[in-house]
Amino acid sequence: MSEEKKEIYLDHISASRTREEAIEAMDGVLREIYGNPHSVHTQGQRAAEVLEEARTNVANLVNAIPEEVIFTSCGSESNNLAIKGIARARKKKSNRIVISAIEHVSINNAVRSLKKEGFEIVTLPVDEYGLVNPDDLTSEIIKGAALVSIIYASTEIGTVQPIEELSKICADARVPFHTDAWGAAGMVPVDFGNSGIAAMTVASQNFSGPPGISALIIKKGTPIKPIIDGGIQERGLRAGQENLPAIAGMGVAAKLAKEEMGEKTTRLKEIRDTLLERIPSEIPDVIVTGHREKRLPNHASFCFKYIEGEGLLLFLNQYGIMAASGSACTSKSLKASHVLSAIGLDVATAQGSLVMTFGMDVKLEDVDYIIEKMKPVVTRLREMSPLFNRKEE
Amino acid sequence: MSEEKKEIYLDHISASRTREEAIEAMDGVLREIYGNPHSVHTQGQRAAEVLEEARTNVANLVNAIPEEVIFTSCGSESNNLAIKGIARARKKKSNRIVISAIEHVSINNAVRSLKKEGFEIVTLPVDEYGLVNPDDLTSEIIKGAALVSIIYASTEIGTVQPIEELSKICADARVPFHTDAWGAAGMVPVDFGNSGIAAMTVASQNFSGPPGISALIIKKGTPIKPIIDGGIQERGLRAGQENLPAIAGMGVAAKLAKEEMGEKTTRLKEIRDTLLERIPSEIPDVIVTGHREKRLPNHASFCFKYIEGEGLLLFLNQYGIMAASGSACTSKSLKASHVLSAIGLDVATAQGSLVMTFGMDVKLEDVDYIIEKMKPVVTRLREMSPLFNRKEE
Repeated sequence: MSEEKKEIYLDHISASRTREEAIEAMDGVLREIYGNPHSVHTQGQRAAEVLEEARTNVANLVNAIPEEVIFTSCGSESNNLAIKGIARARKKKSNRIVISAIEHVSINNAVRSLKKEGFEIVTLPVDEYGLVNPDDLTSEIIKGAALVSIIYASTEIGTVQPIEELSKICADARVPFHTDAWGAAGMVPVDFGNSGIAAMTVASQNFSGPPGISALIIKKGTPIKPIIDGGIQERGLRAGQENLPAIAGMGVAAKLAKEEMGEKTTRLKEIRDTLLERIPSEIPDVIVTGHREKRLPNHASFCFKYIEGEGLLLFLNQYGIMAASGSACTSKSLKASHVLSAIGLDVATAQGSLVMTFGMDVKLEDVDYIIEKMKPVVTRLREMSPLFNRKEE
Repeated sequence: MSEEKKEIYLDHISASRTREEAIEAMDGVLREIYGNPHSVHTQGQRAAEVLEEARTNVANLVNAIPEEVIFTSCGSESNNLAIKGIARARKKKSNRIVISAIEHVSINNAVRSLKKEGFEIVTLPVDEYGLVNPDDLTSEIIKGAALVSIIYASTEIGTVQPIEELSKICADARVPFHTDAWGAAGMVPVDFGNSGIAAMTVASQNFSGPPGISALIIKKGTPIKPIIDGGIQERGLRAGQENLPAIAGMGVAAKLAKEEMGEKTTRLKEIRDTLLERIPSEIPDVIVTGHREKRLPNHASFCFKYIEGEGLLLFLNQYGIMAASGSACTSKSLKASHVLSAIGLDVATAQGSLVMTFGMDVKLEDVDYIIEKMKPVVTRLREMSPLFNRKEE
């Protein structure tokens, strides 16, 4: 009964494989272009060219202009820079920060820090699909705000917000609107230039660029202070030597992501919709979390009743199926997911969360294998579960 | 008169070529180990192993324990984390921050930010070689301090401080001592474990590891708050997805740097001492900046009177000789170097600063070529200089 060891990687949103073209660009920079982009010599000039070419490619991906792209080291840094940087710069205007109930932990903990600096945090609720109601934002914005931050697409339940409408409400009220577009930029078309967005977090990993690099796209004129002070890099908003190989890799990945977006979306949506349809129909007591259509094309998430998500992950992993449960960044915190609570799930149901996100390596035919292996695993876990046994009595 | 285009890279301290072994380690991680180290699946476990192996190698390089190593994205981030993180955590104890007059711009601008938060900044002077007098530190520490930060070795003039003595003064007074060891760690033996250092900035680039990754080594029990809030990575002190390929590269480079330290130091010192002897003796009106013996083994710095450093760099670059003038991070700020002012040089002399720093690619025989090309360049620049012409009159 020996079987080839399959690996089906369904944890794209936690970390993803860097595409070959980006690795090759990184290799080239690591070996040949190692100067500091601010040095006057030839190596420095070569480095500056690489830096600006990548900046242009990242800008093009989201319809921004190159000067609006600030490279950072990760999504959490971009989020911290946006939240702390804008809030501190605008504190005299207002001490209120408006966020949604389903933000990433780096937003939640950044605003927690700001609370100690005297800011008031206002949290907008979401409906059962994870959607913010624009009217709620309108009601809050009247009272003034230093900034508003609403996640573009939930990494945990996949729901895509009505960002155009939300950002316009803020732009009309002259309040900077930030969106954490970690899961969105490079995966769905994002139009920074024609939106009311003032600042946007973009992650290289989301479009199969390397880790260790991200960007904050920031509209000219938006008040913001750096969180890492020092040299004049990145228009004075982010000091420190540039991570040139990773920047080059992100640039190449951004260029390709733009070219391939349509084709990729179609392919991923087919996998997504097959998972969203087949799993709840072939396995009993499974609910889909998040919105069915207004969701990322590479995102399928569920709650399996009477099961603990961690166990499900471990059993699936034995078959080479690698997925996530809740936010990977907090997977060791052992707390119930605030996102699942926000959409109204009880703690027991939320425990059975399974998040499947996929990139270039997963194929439609893998769905058969996933469901074939999942069925007996779910049965076995439920047999072991005291919750399930109680239900049976 | 055609000549093979030589490239002699003498700007190691601004940015350096990543060694082949580190690039190969990065390639392996980029292609094979792309999971999030906090994910429970096999890819996550493999990533966690890579992360902890690298952490051990970096710890070993400076005689620290792995738990003391916090990975960051660059030296400036490490410096900001140490300065802001410790100062804010200890504000109730004291609002005084003691630094030296020759810190990196990321320290200077971090304390400038803290000044706005109510901190008082005390700057210790240095002597003509750039050395801090331990007695000055003793006098200041009596008045209390949130933290002290003194650069281990000047990137601009190469001078290595009496860190053992300085850190002991602080440890005895129970004040956290931070040192920016950007130019030192991996280049000279650094003993964190047996020192009084509470926090230390270590840069991957300094020992030919990749850019985009650095560390803050922090002694257990040192009060510190994160500057990037979010997930539980790096003991809660640095949120955000780990830059695993760069971390792996830094680990390999750290391991090799430790093994090769003795041999490398001997080789580099020979180049350094040859430059420090021959340039002032073969070219008139050149002074050595920094201490002659208490200096980094790969660092030779000068001031060429009656010359503007930028011009010198541009002419040398035509011969493939790439060097720096002042701090590369601030090369576009057009300000007179605060380090050269602190050692007592007048503005005109400081303008002629040339900093040569070197790594694995530079050979002793390159010195002949450097000086051969430098002589006519200096003569020509001086002929063009109004300052030099005034002297001749």
